[in-house]
Amino acid sequence: MSVCFKYIGYVRRKDNSASRHEVVEIHINKEYEEGLKGIEDFSHVIVIYHLHLVNFDGKLVRDWKGAKVGVFATRSQFRPNPIGLSVCELLKREGNVLYVKGINAFDGTPVLDIKPYDEWDRIEKIRVPSWYKLT
Amino acid sequence: MSVCFKYIGYVRRKDNSASRHEVVEIHINKEYEEGLKGIEDFSHVIVIYHLHLVNFDGKLVRDWKGAKVGVFATRSQFRPNPIGLSVCELLKREGNVLYVKGINAFDGTPVLDIKPYDEWDRIEKIRVPSWYKLT
Repeated sequence: MSVCFKYIGYVRRKDNSASRHEVVEIHINKEYEEGLKGIEDFSHVIVIYHLHLVNFDGKLVRDWKGAKVGVFATRSQFRPNPIGLSVCELLKREGNVLYVKGINAFDGTPVLDIKPYDEWDRIEKIRVPSWYKLT
Repeated sequence: MSVCFKYIGYVRRKDNSASRHEVVEIHINKEYEEGLKGIEDFSHVIVIYHLHLVNFDGKLVRDWKGAKVGVFATRSQFRPNPIGLSVCELLKREGNVLYVKGINAFDGTPVLDIKPYDEWDRIEKIRVPSWYKLT
């Protein structure tokens, strides 16, 4: 059983990194521009994208910075479904272009959905294991 | 341009609501169980799922609790790609079953990905517009 999604836009950046520390543009296809109305009222958005450069090798347990853990316990790009997700600061919108900070995706990454980040997404106290070293 | 993803599991709940206040089971298909190793070390997870009951009518600007806003500025299930996302408290794991709280999805909803919720997902200060009334 499966589902197919269409590309609604693309990540555009000038460098060839996937660093989350740069301001990056998200170009939403013109036909969807209307769907962005009001998004500029939020400080943060969730960007969901297709990790289009990844070929998953089928390994479900991986070496994650020294720990042998399951793919679903990591944010590795090597996962059964190559879905990427970044919570980004939304700096501004110009028509169909969002300027965001915090996305770790390469130039040309296809975007599948944009969602506003709300109070349900913001967890006050979280537990993260010591083996999970944030990069 | 599009991409297809496979179902890796299903939401299982006893009531016929999509209330996020109940404890709900996520049954990951047995073939992916190994991929959950270590996930129990996290207090919260992000569940990404297919809003399989939804037929999008193509309307990009919608009435959201009185405001006329774009779909990407809402968490409406009616969106170009029917992708659902919930940040959930992870209560326990038993083999291939996760017990979570915080998912607003119906019984039988197909799951596409599980990601650990980490410090990058947790935003200290956010701005959410007054027209966006949280349910």
